[in-house]
Amino acid sequence: MNKSSVGRFFEDFSLGQLIEHPIPRTITEGDASLYIALTGSRFSLFSSHHLARKVGFAKPPVDNLLLFHIAFGKTVQDISLNAVANLGYAEVQFVLPAFIGDTISVLSEVIGLKENSNGKTGIVYVHSRATNQDGHLVASWKRWVMVHKKQEGMQNTYAVQPQLNSEVSPAHLAMPDQFNADNYSYISSGETFVFKDYQIGEWIDHIDGLTIDSTEHTMATKLYQNNAKVHFNYHQMQDSQHQQRLVYGGHIISLCRSLSHNGLANAQWLAAINGGAHLNPSYAGNTIYAATQVQNKYDLGFGMGALRLKTIGFKNIQWSSIKEQVCSANSSKDYPDNVVLDLDYTVLIPNPK
Amino acid sequence: MNKSSVGRFFEDFSLGQLIEHPIPRTITEGDASLYIALTGSRFSLFSSHHLARKVGFAKPPVDNLLLFHIAFGKTVQDISLNAVANLGYAEVQFVLPAFIGDTISVLSEVIGLKENSNGKTGIVYVHSRATNQDGHLVASWKRWVMVHKKQEGMQNTYAVQPQLNSEVSPAHLAMPDQFNADNYSYISSGETFVFKDYQIGEWIDHIDGLTIDSTEHTMATKLYQNNAKVHFNYHQMQDSQHQQRLVYGGHIISLCRSLSHNGLANAQWLAAINGGAHLNPSYAGNTIYAATQVQNKYDLGFGMGALRLKTIGFKNIQWSSIKEQVCSANSSKDYPDNVVLDLDYTVLIPNPK
Amino acid sequence: MNKSSVGRFFEDFSLGQLIEHPIPRTITEGDASLYIALTGSRFSLFSSHHLARKVGFAKPPVDNLLLFHIAFGKTVQDISLNAVANLGYAEVQFVLPAFIGDTISVLSEVIGLKENSNGKTGIVYVHSRATNQDGHLVASWKRWVMVHKKQEGMQNTYAVQPQLNSEVSPAHLAMPDQFNADNYSYISSGETFVFKDYQIGEWIDHIDGLTIDSTEHTMATKLYQNNAKVHFNYHQMQDSQHQQRLVYGGHIISLCRSLSHNGLANAQWLAAINGGAHLNPSYAGNTIYAATQVQNKYDLGFGMGALRLKTIGFKNIQWSSIKEQVCSANSSKDYPDNVVLDLDYTVLIPNPK
Repeated sequence: MNKSSVGRFFEDFSLGQLIEHPIPRTITEGDASLYIALTGSRFSLFSSHHLARKVGFAKPPVDNLLLFHIAFGKTVQDISLNAVANLGYAEVQFVLPAFIGDTISVLSEVIGLKENSNGKTGIVYVHSRATNQDGHLVASWKRWVMVHKKQEGMQNTYAVQPQLNSEVSPAHLAMPDQFNADNYSYISSGETFVFKDYQIGEWIDHIDGLTIDSTEHTMATKLYQNNAKVHFNYHQMQDSQHQQRLVYGGHIISLCRSLSHNGLANAQWLAAINGGAHLNPSYAGNTIYAATQVQNKYDLGFGMGALRLKTIGFKNIQWSSIKEQVCSANSSKDYPDNVVLDLDYTVLIPNPK
Repeated sequence: MNKSSVGRFFEDFSLGQLIEHPIPRTITEGDASLYIALTGSRFSLFSSHHLARKVGFAKPPVDNLLLFHIAFGKTVQDISLNAVANLGYAEVQFVLPAFIGDTISVLSEVIGLKENSNGKTGIVYVHSRATNQDGHLVASWKRWVMVHKKQEGMQNTYAVQPQLNSEVSPAHLAMPDQFNADNYSYISSGETFVFKDYQIGEWIDHIDGLTIDSTEHTMATKLYQNNAKVHFNYHQMQDSQHQQRLVYGGHIISLCRSLSHNGLANAQWLAAINGGAHLNPSYAGNTIYAATQVQNKYDLGFGMGALRLKTIGFKNIQWSSIKEQVCSANSSKDYPDNVVLDLDYTVLIPNPK
Repeated sequence: MNKSSVGRFFEDFSLGQLIEHPIPRTITEGDASLYIALTGSRFSLFSSHHLARKVGFAKPPVDNLLLFHIAFGKTVQDISLNAVANLGYAEVQFVLPAFIGDTISVLSEVIGLKENSNGKTGIVYVHSRATNQDGHLVASWKRWVMVHKKQEGMQNTYAVQPQLNSEVSPAHLAMPDQFNADNYSYISSGETFVFKDYQIGEWIDHIDGLTIDSTEHTMATKLYQNNAKVHFNYHQMQDSQHQQRLVYGGHIISLCRSLSHNGLANAQWLAAINGGAHLNPSYAGNTIYAATQVQNKYDLGFGMGALRLKTIGFKNIQWSSIKEQVCSANSSKDYPDNVVLDLDYTVLIPNPK
């Protein structure tokens, strides 16, 4: 009996099952520095502790994407090690801020199960919750993955699909209690655009490109203690259709978010991810570009607004060359092959009087 | 007179000589984060400060391999810069825990000297001791290296070889005083296997592989301030038999230890390294796998046991393909060329009633 | 109207203009660890917090090159995003020490403007000042860049060139107040050479070489939040004359400074950079070597001296092969193509009685 784990298969999941993921993680200044070095993030709120204090945070806050990657990473071993595909995620909500020094634990509940008619795979839906050392919820999300069965054949015992919201309702967007918009600095953020300046339907070309290197994406993914094999094992991946390691999709999200600083510098607080798709794989050597469309906007009161954004990430091509095709597409299926990410998310942005 | 140092040669060592190595180092949260990002380590005790506190550590402890690499790195400039070969190490003991914030200094004593009959090289044996800022011993080890002579010829003055133990005696294994096994969490570690579950002779295939990239291994080695030329200078190494830079052997040890989490997640405390051999060089691009055999086990009392382990690291091949050859080998000389590491070490693991 | 910025052009600058650069940055232990991992720095004062305290620093000081790169990085977006060339820098002074935990902001003043006769470009001179969270000056420098015009043609309105000193006067060298040379440890630094041991005109071959990898130089530059496109975007750079990304010149300075530890281990405090030139571009895969000539020396009193140094960085060749050509050159134009850096700077070094 080999003591090492090969991960869960479809038969290992049951409806309502609670999975406490191992390896709680303290997020430190070291993690925050590495996040900047690996993604090039330039949002001022996560760059200056002094600024964070001025706008009301008692301790330096953790970038919500860094929090998400670390929390998500904990679930890989238990949920998606035998995933054929990560099919989607929804209702990613950031509830309370996480601070440097907080220790994050993650619990998942199986909220849906559905066999595929080929008898070989099934779909598992989980609701994951990340809490800090005091047991307070900091983030929550749902995702669904296609998982191999141990044994071929239909069990036909159940097919439960959870109702998933296509958007985190603005009423549920958590604003950091501590945040005091009056002390916010547009000189420090680097731009003066606020809530009122963004129009529904407008596109922002973030212009710059970031080339991914192999150590960069593997270091990021190891930092998150995400142990999905496809990112790390060239020896096995060279015989796959990809012929190389795949870049963790979350790293692409972070690169696009970093690029989006140019045009969205005041949209510092990621409040929710409504959904997203990794339309094509990314590899070391690819150069990632991004463009964003404002989908909707909500005045939240208290000097703060929310923008629902659609950020497109694409590789080895500039926005001007694909803009027309993307904008005229009926769905993401009509996007050119260069598009790697289609992300639907909501950010908070100051809305001064 | 060039002020830069070319390192010590055989004639520069004398028996009983004490060498205080320069560049004491404070181990910070930044180092701990980088260690995770560079090696993919997932042992919960070094991942969660909160957990470390619960099991009795007043401050977050430093992974003993990170401590070792940093302490070892200090000795390179003085001991092995002109090494033809790092021949071996023994009696690597971790005495007191090192904590985040501790400053580590290293002192070596020359405990053996032996000329080689070719007149060109000699073997230097040193005993190195790493202490914290309070002067307390945190780690101790012996190693021997083959070093060039300045001038060819035999001096025939002495040949002193120290007696080296093939195993750190279980009686000398240091248990962290602070450790309270009762508060240990198997949910947090990720596995339930404890002392009684491991059988002498059993093998564990750690399954996963980690591909080494060039920036990764050079960053790790620079983090440790280890300045051995073979790891950093492609311009010189391209004309060597290797035609490229060599990966620091300690990085291979760390990768194998990280991989061993799958099957040994509760063996969190590295107590000793009894010996080890780097059987073949590793290069950027290699994918490292690992398998471990339980060699012996000792009940230490106080709810804790020790496992003496033999971990084999191998590259670009899975365990199933080499297991038979390794298991039937009379010595490591019979191992296939893919085997890069043969490590004999002792870990602590809970032994609940 | 695209909300993203394409940076300033020549017409966007005016004499006396003050530019408050965005994204203040707290320098943390994570940044310090990354700096060691990315550059291989081994100066003991920045390696051991315990040592820093002993020689009088209340908190661990930040390596002045790390401080400079972070501060300089803030200015790129506003000053040099459309630079045709970074022409030079002068009067780089380190005034007060920066400490781990300090938050750095940067303000630049336009001190010179000069159109080029081609009508396409102009030269912008700026004086940049980095301050800590208390508003105290920690670093100050001047630099000049050639910037594209928005519209071709001569404006002929002004041509103001600031007077720049070729050397930061020894009278202006800031000694860290806190520094107590009596508690300085030559065992910890690794060398015994002090002020009196260095002779004007002497060369030091730093011997070792460090090969640059792609993730390494891009991570360093992202850590500094320097967003100059040429370092990050392979997709665009592959069509340039370089056919690949360029290494940030500051990374070359840091590598040479790290290499210079061998022969200058007690020259721990970088007090000023008098000037410098990046004579040729560096790319991933290049191996950087360095040699230093002592240009001048000043006894500063209080047990401290200053050395004015000229450090030459060169790639893929050892000092012995180019020494003659470099030493016999009338100017840096006669240097071989392998020379990438010619840096004129001043360091503090103990001058015990």
